This record gives sequence, C-alpha cells and structure tokens, in this order.
Amino acid sequence: MKWCRFEHKKEIYFGIFEDPFITKVIGTPFGNYELSDERYKLEDVKLDIPVVPSTFYAVGVNYINHVKKMAKIRGIEGITPKSPDVGYRANNALIPHNETIIIPKDASENIQYEGELVVVIGKIAKNLDKNNVWDHIFGYTIGNDVSERNWQSNDRTLWRAKNTDSFKPMGPYIETDIDLNSLRTIIRINNEIKDDFKTNDMIFGISDYLCKMTKYLTLYPGDVIWMGTDEVPQNIKDGDIVEIEITGIGTLINPVIKE
Amino acid sequence: MKWCRFEHKKEIYFGIFEDPFITKVIGTPFGNYELSDERYKLEDVKLDIPVVPSTFYAVGVNYINHVKKMAKIRGIEGITPKSPDVGYRANNALIPHNETIIIPKDASENIQYEGELVVVIGKIAKNLDKNNVWDHIFGYTIGNDVSERNWQSNDRTLWRAKNTDSFKPMGPYIETDIDLNSLRTIIRINNEIKDDFKTNDMIFGISDYLCKMTKYLTLYPGDVIWMGTDEVPQNIKDGDIVEIEITGIGTLINPVIKE
Repeated sequence: MKWCRFEHKKEIYFGIFEDPFITKVIGTPFGNYELSDERYKLEDVKLDIPVVPSTFYAVGVNYINHVKKMAKIRGIEGITPKSPDVGYRANNALIPHNETIIIPKDASENIQYEGELVVVIGKIAKNLDKNNVWDHIFGYTIGNDVSERNWQSNDRTLWRAKNTDSFKPMGPYIETDIDLNSLRTIIRINNEIKDDFKTNDMIFGISDYLCKMTKYLTLYPGDVIWMGTDEVPQNIKDGDIVEIEITGIGTLINPVIKE
Repeated sequence: MKWCRFEHKKEIYFGIFEDPFITKVIGTPFGNYELSDERYKLEDVKLDIPVVPSTFYAVGVNYINHVKKMAKIRGIEGITPKSPDVGYRANNALIPHNETIIIPKDASENIQYEGELVVVIGKIAKNLDKNNVWDHIFGYTIGNDVSERNWQSNDRTLWRAKNTDSFKPMGPYIETDIDLNSLRTIIRINNEIKDDFKTNDMIFGISDYLCKMTKYLTLYPGDVIWMGTDEVPQNIKDGDIVEIEITGIGTLINPVIKE
C-alpha cells in the first residue's frame, strides 16, 4: 500500500495512492483513520512530504563501497564504522517530490545528492529485538541527503552542509509492502544513470540500527531513519533534475537551482 | 510573563503562571490564544515540558572557561570554535521539571549535568539581522544537557551520549521578559552550589547564532536553541537532586536514578 500526504484546497491530508487516484483519508495512518469517498487524480493535487518526523534520524556512512571510494577521492584512509551510531537531520530542510533544491549563492560547486532508503516508524518502540523490530516499522520512503562537501569538511557540525533549507527532499510515497533484499537504488541526473546499487547491502542493517538505538531511546510513530547511500555521489548544479528511484517504492524527482 | 505547559485531567494545556496560580490558556502562545477562567494551584497540576520543539538545536562549546578547563582535564589543547556552528538534540530525550533522569545500567560513572539557557523562537525567521533578531524570540527557558562522557568520546556521534531517554530536562517555564546581561546560571547538586556563572558570557551570542543560522535555514515558532554551558560540570549519580537555576527565569529540578 502506498501512503502519501497531499495539499488540496489549502488543507493537508493523508491519502492512499492507487495509480492514478489518491483516496483522501480522514485521520492518520499512525492512529485511527477511515477512507473518505473523495478521490483525486495525482496531477490535480500537490504532494507534500509523506510524514513530518517528530525526530529525524540519519545513519550516515553505511555502505562499504561508499566508505572505500570516498576515502580514495579524499586521499584518506576509509574508516568503517564499528557500531551503529545514528545522527540527526532537521525538519526545516525537508521538501516534497517535485519541489526545487535551492543551492545558496555562497555554496561551492562541491554539492552532491545522496540517494537513501528511509524507514518510517509505525509504533512506539523501546528495547526492540530482532524478532519484533519489523512489527514497529510502518513503511519505507526515499530521501535525497543533499550535501555541500566543503561545509561538511570545514564546519564543526553538519548543520548547513546537510540542513540548509531544501536540502532534504523526501517522498513521494511511503510503501508499506516491500521485499527489502530485492530493492535497487538507481540515481539519475538529467535522465542519465549515475549510480545503481543494491539498497539493502548495508554495513549495519535496519534491524541492527533499530535494536541498538532503542536500547537507549524511544522511537515514536512518524520518526524517520535515513539509512545512508552507496557509491560516490556526483555534483549537482543549477538546471539539473535529480531522480532517486528505489524499485518497489517509487521515484523522488527534484529540480535544482542556484540562488 | 511566565508560560508553561501542564497536564490536568489527562489533557495538556498551555498556561500562564503567576505564583501560586496557573491560568489555563485556550490555544497556543505561538498562534491565537485566549485566557480561560480556569486557574489551578501549581501543586495541583503536573508540569510538562514548556514547548515541544519542531527542531531541537544545541550550540555546544560556547564559553571560554568551559573550553579551557575541559581541555586541561582531558589533556588536550582547547579549541575555541571559529564560527557559530549549531548542532542538534532529539525530542525523545526531553523530560519536564521534577521528572527523573534515568542513567542506563551500562552507562559509566562519567555522566554529567550541563546547565544551559534555552532560546525559544516565536516567529518564522529567515535572514535575520542584529536589528530584528530579538523580535523573533518568544522567550527563554532552562535546559540540562545531561551527557555520558565516555560515549561522547568514543561513539561516532552524540546520539546516546546526549539523547538517551530522560537526558534532556527542560523547563519549568518560558520567561518572556528578561534582561540577558543580568542573568546568572547557578547549579546545585543536593543543595550544594557546584557552579555559578554569568549566563550571557558566551563566545558567540544569541544574535550571532540566530543571524548565521537563518542565512541558511528557516527557524519556526517553538524551535529551541540550547546555548551551551560554562565551567566544568561534575558527575551526577543515583540519588542526586540536580538544580539548574537561571536568575529571572526559575529553577529546573530533577532527581537522578541509576537503572
């Protein structure tokens, strides 16, 4: 099932998408809801981000190829994380499918996409184990962890490198039914494939992360965990169209402009 | 004016506190609201955190004494930040005044308070300058940035060192009218003063941070920015009572237990 959030006549609703229609939902998928008898064609509504996270987690470095190849480019030794230590991103930076990534005028040319699988939490979760972890996941969406690499290297934190307004496209849908091991992440700039990797080929998997995290913290319905990217992301620039496809979920498309 | 949030008969309300009464408010201080004719004695309600942040910022290292003395203890060179680079904390860790800080059973003894001034944003803010920055602040509250120093040193991120459930006491009130330069932060453990410093004696001030941040990101009503701590925080342990007083705002009190 594909869940979305959309704007119609200046109100935001959850909806269930069955191509080509979105059925409007009263309530939220994280609590009680019922289907309305209203449905709209996808092209007649504006999609919003599919969930507003209460906490926005991102795991960073989580694919072996990414570690090795990025280290080679930077002329440093690649360090594989020893444990699943999660990081954070910020809601101000989130934009939906089709909205524009705006590169600030003082950013360098060294600004890149990162195509990521996003886990959406469905139930309050503490002290998960590998048997019950999957019951607490609502579904999966797609994120583009846009990163300004000079700021990432030189600032004391990732605040503007990763969380400048518009740097976190997320969407278009949350898919509740997927076979994780069959997924591929395919990234295109201006219709040209730049990367194509096995989505679930992670250093620490979803279960590793959620079990470790919930030993110390409570996850809440609507929290999102961005699972990192593989390969070596390429620069994006004014006029580009970036597409992150994860097979079985959908394709997140965003144009890029330089301020 | 002192704003709070409180639980009464299993519902959460904003309130205005005028000792000894809390007047219940219909609506929120960040939008439209009106005073109800209901008021309660402080001791008859349970205070909640005074605001649920949409994004939870924390500036980290922001006082000269703290940098120098912490570096000396760690046997490293103290590095004064060159620019106001903000970090993040997470909502799961927030607890109100009087609620218990719970130290996980596998935490070290090296776990410490940090008494911090908290800025609460009142209006949508982008591209602030030093003339209009103060108009966008709703008020100020108090935070205790509890930190497990071994995890802080050894993990790849601050996730459990700083964001374990219960590690972020915040409250009790948001004070809208203060004279920043007159404030002192006084920290007591079991009624004994451990630190007493000038609250506004920061490396980068509130205006520096908000102007730099909003060059790249939008701040929203209810966002909080924790401004860092001075001096050398001491260890806290099972059975302790930690009090963070900021003169003119109030006193945030939390007991500590080891799990």
